[in-house]
Order: sequence, then structure tokens, then C-alpha cells
Amino acid sequence: MPEFRQNRATKEWIIIAKERAKRPDQFKLRRKKKKEFPPFDPGCPFCPGNESKTPSEVFSLRKGKRWQVRVIPNKYPALASEGQFLIQREGFFIKARGIGHHEVIIHTPGHNRSLGSLALSQVEKVCLTYRRRYLDLEKDKKIKLIIIFENHGETAGTSLPHPHSQLVALPLVPASIRHLLEEAMRYYDDHGCCVFCDMISQELKTKKRVVARTEDFVAFHPFASRTPFETWIVPLKHNAGFGSITESECRKMAKILKATLQMLDKSLSDPDYNLLIRTAPIKDAQEDYYHWHVQILPRLSTPAGFELGSGVFINTTLPEETAQFLRERKAKKGKPT
Amino acid sequence: MPEFRQNRATKEWIIIAKERAKRPDQFKLRRKKKKEFPPFDPGCPFCPGNESKTPSEVFSLRKGKRWQVRVIPNKYPALASEGQFLIQREGFFIKARGIGHHEVIIHTPGHNRSLGSLALSQVEKVCLTYRRRYLDLEKDKKIKLIIIFENHGETAGTSLPHPHSQLVALPLVPASIRHLLEEAMRYYDDHGCCVFCDMISQELKTKKRVVARTEDFVAFHPFASRTPFETWIVPLKHNAGFGSITESECRKMAKILKATLQMLDKSLSDPDYNLLIRTAPIKDAQEDYYHWHVQILPRLSTPAGFELGSGVFINTTLPEETAQFLRERKAKKGKPT
Repeated sequence: MPEFRQNRATKEWIIIAKERAKRPDQFKLRRKKKKEFPPFDPGCPFCPGNESKTPSEVFSLRKGKRWQVRVIPNKYPALASEGQFLIQREGFFIKARGIGHHEVIIHTPGHNRSLGSLALSQVEKVCLTYRRRYLDLEKDKKIKLIIIFENHGETAGTSLPHPHSQLVALPLVPASIRHLLEEAMRYYDDHGCCVFCDMISQELKTKKRVVARTEDFVAFHPFASRTPFETWIVPLKHNAGFGSITESECRKMAKILKATLQMLDKSLSDPDYNLLIRTAPIKDAQEDYYHWHVQILPRLSTPAGFELGSGVFINTTLPEETAQFLRERKAKKGKPT
Repeated sequence: MPEFRQNRATKEWIIIAKERAKRPDQFKLRRKKKKEFPPFDPGCPFCPGNESKTPSEVFSLRKGKRWQVRVIPNKYPALASEGQFLIQREGFFIKARGIGHHEVIIHTPGHNRSLGSLALSQVEKVCLTYRRRYLDLEKDKKIKLIIIFENHGETAGTSLPHPHSQLVALPLVPASIRHLLEEAMRYYDDHGCCVFCDMISQELKTKKRVVARTEDFVAFHPFASRTPFETWIVPLKHNAGFGSITESECRKMAKILKATLQMLDKSLSDPDYNLLIRTAPIKDAQEDYYHWHVQILPRLSTPAGFELGSGVFINTTLPEETAQFLRERKAKKGKPT
């Protein structure tokens, strides 16, 4: 019998339909072999030596003359940095100039080093860079929401294989984010507590869906996971906005992020995924009802007409089982380094 | 300069970023060659002669002994038909038995005939079958919303190539649909008119984005299209629920649906797409503020981290240009038959 499950934070329902399923260990088998990339590609604009092929750097972390993490404006930006944001009418229709920021965060000089496979010190630099760019762009008065994300692999929508994240700073709060905040606010009204705080305390109590835990963060497969192996990494300390993160917390975030990505990588042979930092709009950064977190969505299934038409996702595996599968593999192979 | 556009019905923003773009005529070129299928596949459970390989038929349209359109329960249903729907607590978490209906509507005995390539009389039969199943399942008191959709092609999420649509009848109204209805309701409060009615009257006035028009329906590329060549087919007569459609209106729907799909097929060489019938929840079927319509989303781009994190889609072409491109091709090649 299939099962509906509600994500209490977003109020989304998902369907667990195990009859349509593969067991957790079968996801690895059905995937096509991935392209292998060399450690350096002379034609790649993100590889060292090709810096002149990209727009001018806005930030970098360096060791001597060499950059270790590099941030550049997107060469084909979805939004332009200069200009005033103003909503306009065109008769019945509503539009605005595409103002905002769109940056690329190059994780490493290495062309073929995925985020999870980097040394911990390098993942720390990536997280510290996320923080730096967030704090810098947050100062721009027209910016309302900052989205940081990584598209890993071709099916996850990346066009350049050199490991990188992106940052889009929006001058508006999209409707879907407003709805998310409203649902969280309602939960707060009803329970006097942040729904994410309640969720993590439940997850830590049952442990069934937890895949990694540190003093400051917990990683788990949510009760109402949209896709197999969906993973949330949530800071234990309540904060609505990502901008609240300290440098020392960035290092702790790097540790659990690396461990989580490494587990996925080893168990599913480097799956394509989208990684998102889900943070409150800037004006809501101090609120009690939202809680920033990292969401990792492996691309193991294709959302199709039903998902598009209903917003309800069909997941063919139980998150309890995928989490157990990862924990058992980890126990067998020893702790990821 | 990129542009934000708001879908006034859903309140979603999209970004038109032409700098990242292909021209409308380039979409055809970049697509991989599609697999060709034979007219009959002895191993296909949906081909005539293999009826015993599927669950028992729930409906069919026949000519003599042969079926022309056939409806069966999905062999691996996302929801089970029998049982009571009841929302339950599991400590903090909320779940329910996966009750509902999940059916497959086989469009034609022909293994390789896409919906747009069928004879008009056959497309009419498909639309009449949509109506029949909708009206039948609507009678089930536990059903709150019926989603009818077609996943055409592998990238659109189909697993069996034999042309078919699916129907999922849900015992709940998903959060995203509630939000959609609320936005439409607010527009109605502010303007005393259905936002979709206003939208189609604007589209018919400017004609810029219209690609097909009959006495009863209009097909256009929405002002805030999520993807290149997104198409809405909207009945001119206001009705919130698809269940209001008459048999004669089904035939008219078939005509514009065939013309629209044929245009897309010829201009983009049979693109993969998702087709959705977007209808109000059953209890809202008589409301003044919602308006059922068909949404066709060609799979010409991959929604990635930004779309997942913000709900904002980046479209690389102007709907005015894609619509003009289709109209010009139609004018050159004569009216689709």
C-alpha cells in the first residue's frame, strides 16, 4: 500500500510508492557510466591559466600567487548587476528589469575534483566563500533573497564540468518562498516553536533517518523525501538566515557536507545532484519561524507530468531504508575521512 | 538586459535571459536524434493482442471487437483504489494511506503514433475518454482533485513508449494547488474578474503570443513562459473545472490540441513534452476565479538548482518570438491538417 507523507515545514505531500521501487542498492546499478574528466583541461575557462577567458574576478582565496577558490560574475548572467529594480505594467502584464547578481564560485583549480572528494580544508574554503559572497551581496539594498546552489553533473543541469557553485541574488521574494515562509509562520503560531527545530529534535530522537551528526549539524533523509536519498543538513542552532553563520561554523558545515557528499558518492557512484542553501529572505533573517539548511537532491528520478501538475512527488523508497543503507555501508567501510 | 515577468495567474516570476539564448529555430538543431519505434511491438503491454499483460480494462472505446482507446489501472500504481483515506500522526510526523486512483489511458493501438500525429477523430476519442474517466472518478466521494497528464518521450519521464496519458485522482488538495487557487481568488477580489479570462482577452487583443485560435479555444505562449515554447490552450468559456466540458467541446478541444501539438512536432522535430490538464479541485469546480486549461511544457531545458531553490524559471527566449516563429512556419507550410 502506498503512503502519503507530509513535509511539515513546507506542507508538501509526497507519495511513497515502494511497489514502483528499486531497493536502495539498486540505484547504483541502473545509472549510466559517467564521463571521466582529466585533472586539467586547457579548453576549460575555469582551469588555472585561463583566467582571462572569464569576466573579472570579484573575490578569491589565494595561497601565494595561486587562487584556491575563485568567484567571477556569470559570463551569461540571468540577471544584470547594474540598474534600478522597478516593477512595471505593460497593460495587463507585469514585468521588471532583470536586475540582481549572478556569480560563479569555482571550488578548486582541479578540473575533475567533485566537492565531496576535495580535502576538508578545501571544502572549508568553499563554505567560507559562500559566506563571504552572501555577506557582501546582502549589503546591496535592492537584494531581497540570495540563492546559493550547485548543479553537479549533466542531468542536474550543469553546462561546464569544472566543479563550481552559483549564487543568484534576487531583488524580489518569489511566490513559492513566500508560501514556504507563511507555512513556517503558521506552525510557529500553533506551536510556539520553529518547525525545523522540532523536526531535527524528532530526527535526533528516532535516529532512523539520520546519516551523519556532528556537534553542530545533523544530516538526515527527510520523512517526506521528494526523491530517493534526498538529504537535509540542518544546523542545530536556530537561525533563519544563512548570513548568520560564523567562520568557525562554516568549517563545521564543511565537515558534515564533505562526509554527506562522500557517502552519496561512494554508495551511488558519484550521482548527479542539486545542492541548495535554503535561507530566509534577507528581511526575515532574524525570524523565529524559519531555519536555514542545506538540501541535496540526487537526480535519481525524473519529475514528470504528475509532479508538475500537483506539486506532489512520488518517491519509490523509504527514507528510513536509504538512511539505514548509508549507515551500514559507512559502518562496513569505516568512517569517511 | 534580462527581464523579470510575472505570471499574473500564479504570481510566479520568471526571468527572460536572451543573452543565454538560442534563437527559436535553433532548438531543433541541438536535440539528439530520437529513437524510432515500429508501429507494433510484440513485447509492448499496450499493443493490441497483449491485453492480458495489463490489469483489467476499466473503460474502452471500441469499433466492433477492436478497442480504439483503452483505460486500465496502472500496474504499479502510485495510489491504491481500495480503502479509506485518513490522515494519521506518527509522533511529530503526518502521513496517510496512499488511497486514490491511478489509471493509464492508451491513446491508440498504434505503438508509434504520437498524440499530435493521430487522425482528428482519434484525438477526439482521447479527449472524450479524458472526460469520461474524469466524470466517473469525480463521483468517488473521497477524491478531491484529478490530474490528467501525458509524459511524451524519455526526458519527459515516460517509461513505456506506447502513446498514453495518465490520470491520478487525489484524496487531498496539495499545498501548491491551494496556493494557486488563493492567488486566483485574490485577483478576483481585486478585479471582480477571473484572471485567466482577463489573460485570454489580452492575448486575443495583442495576438503577439497566439499560435492557434478556434471559436472556443485559444492557444498561446504565456507572457511569463517557464520554458521556450510553453503553450497554454484555454477555453474561451469560463469554467473552473474540467468536468464541465461537454462532448461537443471535447471535439473542439481535440482540434486545437492536435493543431498545437502538430506545430510543435513539425517545428521542433517531435520534442519531448509534458501535457497537463490544470483543473480546479472538485469542490471548487463552480468557482468564478479559476479557469481550467491545458498546459504543454516542452522539455527543451533542465530546471536546475536555481529553479528548485527559488521557483523562478529562467527562459532563454521571448514567447512573442517563439509564437511568431510557429505562426510563420504555419503560414509557409499551410495550415496543419
